[in-house]
Amino acid sequence: MADAARVTIWNEYRHEKSDENVAKIYPEGIHGALATMLEEAAFEVRTATLDEPEHGLPDDVLDTTDVLLWWGHAAHGEVSDETVDKVHGRVLGGMGLIVLHSGHFSKVFTRLMGTTCDLKWRHDDKERLWVVAPGHPIAEGLGEYIELEEEMYGEPFDVPQPDEIVFISHFGGGEVFRSGLCYRRGRGRIFYFRPGHEENPSYHNPDVQRVIRNAVSWAAPTPGAVPVYGHYEPVE
Amino acid sequence: MADAARVTIWNEYRHEKSDENVAKIYPEGIHGALATMLEEAAFEVRTATLDEPEHGLPDDVLDTTDVLLWWGHAAHGEVSDETVDKVHGRVLGGMGLIVLHSGHFSKVFTRLMGTTCDLKWRHDDKERLWVVAPGHPIAEGLGEYIELEEEMYGEPFDVPQPDEIVFISHFGGGEVFRSGLCYRRGRGRIFYFRPGHEENPSYHNPDVQRVIRNAVSWAAPTPGAVPVYGHYEPVE
Amino acid sequence: MADAARVTIWNEYRHEKSDENVAKIYPEGIHGALATMLEEAAFEVRTATLDEPEHGLPDDVLDTTDVLLWWGHAAHGEVSDETVDKVHGRVLGGMGLIVLHSGHFSKVFTRLMGTTCDLKWRHDDKERLWVVAPGHPIAEGLGEYIELEEEMYGEPFDVPQPDEIVFISHFGGGEVFRSGLCYRRGRGRIFYFRPGHEENPSYHNPDVQRVIRNAVSWAAPTPGAVPVYGHYEPVE
Amino acid sequence: MADAARVTIWNEYRHEKSDENVAKIYPEGIHGALATMLEEAAFEVRTATLDEPEHGLPDDVLDTTDVLLWWGHAAHGEVSDETVDKVHGRVLGGMGLIVLHSGHFSKVFTRLMGTTCDLKWRHDDKERLWVVAPGHPIAEGLGEYIELEEEMYGEPFDVPQPDEIVFISHFGGGEVFRSGLCYRRGRGRIFYFRPGHEENPSYHNPDVQRVIRNAVSWAAPTPGAVPVYGHYEPVE
Repeated sequence: MADAARVTIWNEYRHEKSDENVAKIYPEGIHGALATMLEEAAFEVRTATLDEPEHGLPDDVLDTTDVLLWWGHAAHGEVSDETVDKVHGRVLGGMGLIVLHSGHFSKVFTRLMGTTCDLKWRHDDKERLWVVAPGHPIAEGLGEYIELEEEMYGEPFDVPQPDEIVFISHFGGGEVFRSGLCYRRGRGRIFYFRPGHEENPSYHNPDVQRVIRNAVSWAAPTPGAVPVYGHYEPVE
Repeated sequence: MADAARVTIWNEYRHEKSDENVAKIYPEGIHGALATMLEEAAFEVRTATLDEPEHGLPDDVLDTTDVLLWWGHAAHGEVSDETVDKVHGRVLGGMGLIVLHSGHFSKVFTRLMGTTCDLKWRHDDKERLWVVAPGHPIAEGLGEYIELEEEMYGEPFDVPQPDEIVFISHFGGGEVFRSGLCYRRGRGRIFYFRPGHEENPSYHNPDVQRVIRNAVSWAAPTPGAVPVYGHYEPVE
Repeated sequence: MADAARVTIWNEYRHEKSDENVAKIYPEGIHGALATMLEEAAFEVRTATLDEPEHGLPDDVLDTTDVLLWWGHAAHGEVSDETVDKVHGRVLGGMGLIVLHSGHFSKVFTRLMGTTCDLKWRHDDKERLWVVAPGHPIAEGLGEYIELEEEMYGEPFDVPQPDEIVFISHFGGGEVFRSGLCYRRGRGRIFYFRPGHEENPSYHNPDVQRVIRNAVSWAAPTPGAVPVYGHYEPVE
Repeated sequence: MADAARVTIWNEYRHEKSDENVAKIYPEGIHGALATMLEEAAFEVRTATLDEPEHGLPDDVLDTTDVLLWWGHAAHGEVSDETVDKVHGRVLGGMGLIVLHSGHFSKVFTRLMGTTCDLKWRHDDKERLWVVAPGHPIAEGLGEYIELEEEMYGEPFDVPQPDEIVFISHFGGGEVFRSGLCYRRGRGRIFYFRPGHEENPSYHNPDVQRVIRNAVSWAAPTPGAVPVYGHYEPVE
């Protein structure tokens, strides 16, 4: 990616409208907070939300998206199968995907993983995300760990074994969680990043922002070899 | 698994009825040939086919199956989503799954993988399956490679990176293929094994049979820790 | 492995002789405690210690060992390179190896890993080992986690990415650690298991014992395909 | 890596001096041919050879190297353990390492892998390197495969399971080989790339050159989180 990656931030955008505590934390929506910090990093940024036509993701948007961020929670079932099919196909074709927090249960992520993506959870805990892959580009510029007031997610996390684990979280209540996971699916790269409960201001945390920026750079597609499938004659 | 694994062999069972060349190779069906050699190895074996009620996989069969084998090709679309949902859930719950040859495009396998599972292919080639993980239990008792007259499958194979690769195939026409792949999904183990085109007698080959028997033993469930999901209170 | 695995338990066996608190916990030595519980599980068990001739591991012992357990701490440097070479070669040839606790810094383990195997540590903490791979045979029969009074080991743990992670530990002081790690090297299987500080009675804990028994069964060699190396003529 | 990576190419540089056929193919040495094409790609390039003092790798060179390339064959044993220790430590500290062809048996690579790195081989074959990870940055800009007149290397390749496989090779004589392998060790990234027998002009092949350039970019260190090891007090 010589040029700046073109990022589309998808957000369910319901909690911010229905819950005034969330609205105080994210007055422009979670997508707005993420957009601001990604624009400051010189990415080309758009946003899309559930209640827009085609959920804000018509073909021309997907056609020009290098990396898609996905935040959803209470309305996974309202995302149309047509949109899920399209996003799934784009990721396999090379588009990067960054799945945030409760997006673990989104149709897009569970389709890509093939598992339930289930976990245990509890509000109001203290999370410490330890860097377990210190040389990984997604950990660039971090210290030993990131500490947040957050919702707890606990193991087992029912996902396929990741290609690489960047973070493992410690929670005050006694749980652990693999909280930064890299997957390659088809030609696309996927990063799952745990923090981001809507009642906690985690997306305002500078280290969380840094991780997301690093992940966007990591997930941006490379114009790699184009696969050929189907009936195939031997090469002379 | 102290006791013998209970195996159910699922077969589409259409080619054997419509094509007399295939019928000559597998007069009792592909499932019949597999059943015979697994019974000889003292496994407890049943068979199920597409055109039976519930495709031969009602709940009481799935409830008492440790390892399911799956061969399908021309009629993947006729397998009901209800059955696919059930099998998918059973695998995540611990049932072993061995996907054979053209089963790479079955609904069950693509659902578990999350990718297209596409590949390139051509009839009438010569396959040499090299053991690349000599200490793996699925390779137990083999020599350096297995050689077969077979259909060619060529890379790239659009599947997630496997947890372990046991075989890589060489084809006379110039292609290669990762032909023995291990996955863990949920509590279940999955083995994809490439050979088995219906017009070639590969399931009569003693080494192919040995691999399938080894894979059944490997995939049989262990009464491991039971995962707990959902809302979770801290442990004192 | 149709027959019971032949296990050799190697122990440095110094703390038990020099520190009376340790001697109270392990009056027969750490190797003695491990031997007792493995014999009860019908394995064929021998022990070997640092101060015996050839560290208790002459060729005839290694020749008849299926799985070797390794506990060392203060005297890694006293293990001769000759013995390390032999053990290293045996593991690559198929012998299982279970490396316990402070064995992370042993010559044998660091040679096999190729990395520093460094970590952070602190005495007197509370460890909770969460099962993160519920269907894994090494987790067979466990509950959700194991809880111990133990020394803390903290991430990053400078080891190669494991083939499978069975446990991740939570420590009361705020750290996490990948505490049950599976590797295949050559034809041999290696399991690293974190607990076992000499001042804590962890090897008397029934769940810790269960993990080690499961790991012995998992690591026992299979008579797999024998690799052929060197100059090679094409097969007709 | 905002700036161009600083690359040091290490070459045994014996065949080119003793064998006139090799000298015709690589009149400036293998390192010279590699240096030219990397300089054209705007990397900052130096070379080092076995017979220079400290094998051309004194501390000040290693201190200013982002990515080291390694070609050796007949004189692995002449590389001093002191240099091997240093290179090993640098890789774990973050320096990228690209191991070429017969470098599989170098002290540096076998130390990092922990296995024998053995394989089978034969001169004068035809290699086709298939891209099996089409979206991988090391495959950027390639077609479906690369074809070369080359020495054959055959499986099993006794290395740890790689973190990612980019290429698998087909050989005319009937063998296969995992020929492009990614590893992370410590904070460093390692790429093993198979081609480059001294009697074949493979390093003049534009696609081989492209792979090496891509691999240099991939292996360049990121200023990631700095690991902390040793005795550790709990964080308040």
